[in-house]
Amino acid sequence: MSILVVGTVAFDSIETPSGSAERVLGGSATYFSFAASLFAPVRVVGVIGEDFPQEHLDLFSRRGIDIQGLKKEKGETFHWRGRYHEDLNVRDTIELHLNVLSSFVPRLPESYRETDYVFLGNIDPAMQLEVVDQLKHFRLLACDTMDHWINGSPKELRKVLARVEILMINDSEARLLSGEHNIVRAARAILKMGPKTVLIKRGEYGVLQFSDSAIFAVPAYPLEEVFDPTGAGDSFAGGFVGQLARTREPGQGGLRRAIVYGSVVASFAVEDFGPQRLSSLTAAEIEERYRRFVELTNFHS
Amino acid sequence: MSILVVGTVAFDSIETPSGSAERVLGGSATYFSFAASLFAPVRVVGVIGEDFPQEHLDLFSRRGIDIQGLKKEKGETFHWRGRYHEDLNVRDTIELHLNVLSSFVPRLPESYRETDYVFLGNIDPAMQLEVVDQLKHFRLLACDTMDHWINGSPKELRKVLARVEILMINDSEARLLSGEHNIVRAARAILKMGPKTVLIKRGEYGVLQFSDSAIFAVPAYPLEEVFDPTGAGDSFAGGFVGQLARTREPGQGGLRRAIVYGSVVASFAVEDFGPQRLSSLTAAEIEERYRRFVELTNFHS
Repeated sequence: MSILVVGTVAFDSIETPSGSAERVLGGSATYFSFAASLFAPVRVVGVIGEDFPQEHLDLFSRRGIDIQGLKKEKGETFHWRGRYHEDLNVRDTIELHLNVLSSFVPRLPESYRETDYVFLGNIDPAMQLEVVDQLKHFRLLACDTMDHWINGSPKELRKVLARVEILMINDSEARLLSGEHNIVRAARAILKMGPKTVLIKRGEYGVLQFSDSAIFAVPAYPLEEVFDPTGAGDSFAGGFVGQLARTREPGQGGLRRAIVYGSVVASFAVEDFGPQRLSSLTAAEIEERYRRFVELTNFHS
Repeated sequence: MSILVVGTVAFDSIETPSGSAERVLGGSATYFSFAASLFAPVRVVGVIGEDFPQEHLDLFSRRGIDIQGLKKEKGETFHWRGRYHEDLNVRDTIELHLNVLSSFVPRLPESYRETDYVFLGNIDPAMQLEVVDQLKHFRLLACDTMDHWINGSPKELRKVLARVEILMINDSEARLLSGEHNIVRAARAILKMGPKTVLIKRGEYGVLQFSDSAIFAVPAYPLEEVFDPTGAGDSFAGGFVGQLARTREPGQGGLRRAIVYGSVVASFAVEDFGPQRLSSLTAAEIEERYRRFVELTNFHS
């Protein structure tokens, strides 16, 4: 089962308490597709500038990722510069240059219009809608968003939420979107906006999954060193959607195991700067850490 | 198997986003013993002032708690006034009157000196040591502490840590005690100070358990309304030690299930102001919520 992702492909300049990295490969579509490609074939829709090097494109190809939908436009690639606090859940945006992203209109190649699993990565909700409108068939539609769109494009975002089955969102953004401080009430309010499932990402504290009938909670994998949290959420999404596409396992059980696979992949993603760790990650490493998640959380043996 | 607790018995004046309560029954020994008494017989060592009402003592008796070791002294009972932020993990101390606690020297009744499960609640480490020195026999020694003692009585605290098997501590206090920001490294550093097991309490994010050989993580029970987080940590400790004393189940499995029982009791404690909810709590309610914890966390069906 193949997977389609629309999102950003970017240069990230990152400062964390563990070090810094200048203009490394980044963006929501990048992290998502690197993660998901470990589970199932992935197609990317996005835009890059003329300055985007061939070696980065080769990294996608080496993962077997279909980049037919990655359009090269005149101008520079989207560039984000950010700094993380000692509390890695907090970061400041220092610079943000949309560049070629500012005028991007996603166009799906004909072969992309029937894709079973679709992830609308963190990007302008208007662009997310463009993609949905071009789809002829899909089985599952999931999306991510952020405070910038919650504040700046609330109407378009609501249209997206009315159409997706799964929303993935940070805890602080869930509070902002719902106007509720308590996270259970925030999730319940968001469920009323459309999604059947809301996944609340809580960084080092793990993930909460809410649906009408159940709540599932899983902690994050405890790491002695987090080098760079950038892309953790998108890597989580990639592992999650990837596992769903790989197994097509339905129901709560399938969703829960996919959430753990997402957490597994995210735990690797933060072990190095940029998507480096994901580039070298193997299926065997994923399975080994999945078993560690079972050990980490099991008490009803 | 009986349980001994030393800690504070207090009046708490509490303000939370959900409301406020004036001079309600509080203190670490109170919450701990109310919680633990749902699992096994409990003995309390502590001090109260002349202003401590009989109706509060009756609440202890109604739970079958042995208050022979609760000394009444001339003066007023320890009084704490605090205010919680909207983020309930953050609170300010507005007033703190030690009163009779300032000159308290714990003296164990002869019948208390052989107790299998001993919990040194959050109180001056010098007082915790006094209690340990008076014990002739115990099976398990666990303790709690807080930033005030980490900063103010580091030497005495180190002596306590060298003698206890289990330390329960907040995440921010674990960072303070160890000088490590990363919580895994903080826990590893604390394990070197003496305890074989460190339980890191993370409020609404649950609990992490560290030993040399394993890490266990359990989320907190998601609640739509937290009225008053006061005593959550002590209620957790009471449920945890209570379950260990009730079952005498050894090894990782027993510890893990006890951590979940502690989390169950803590989740009830915060549903009302003061120890009110614990006063009415039943064994059946505890078992029911334990089953909900299994449902909440299970993904390896």
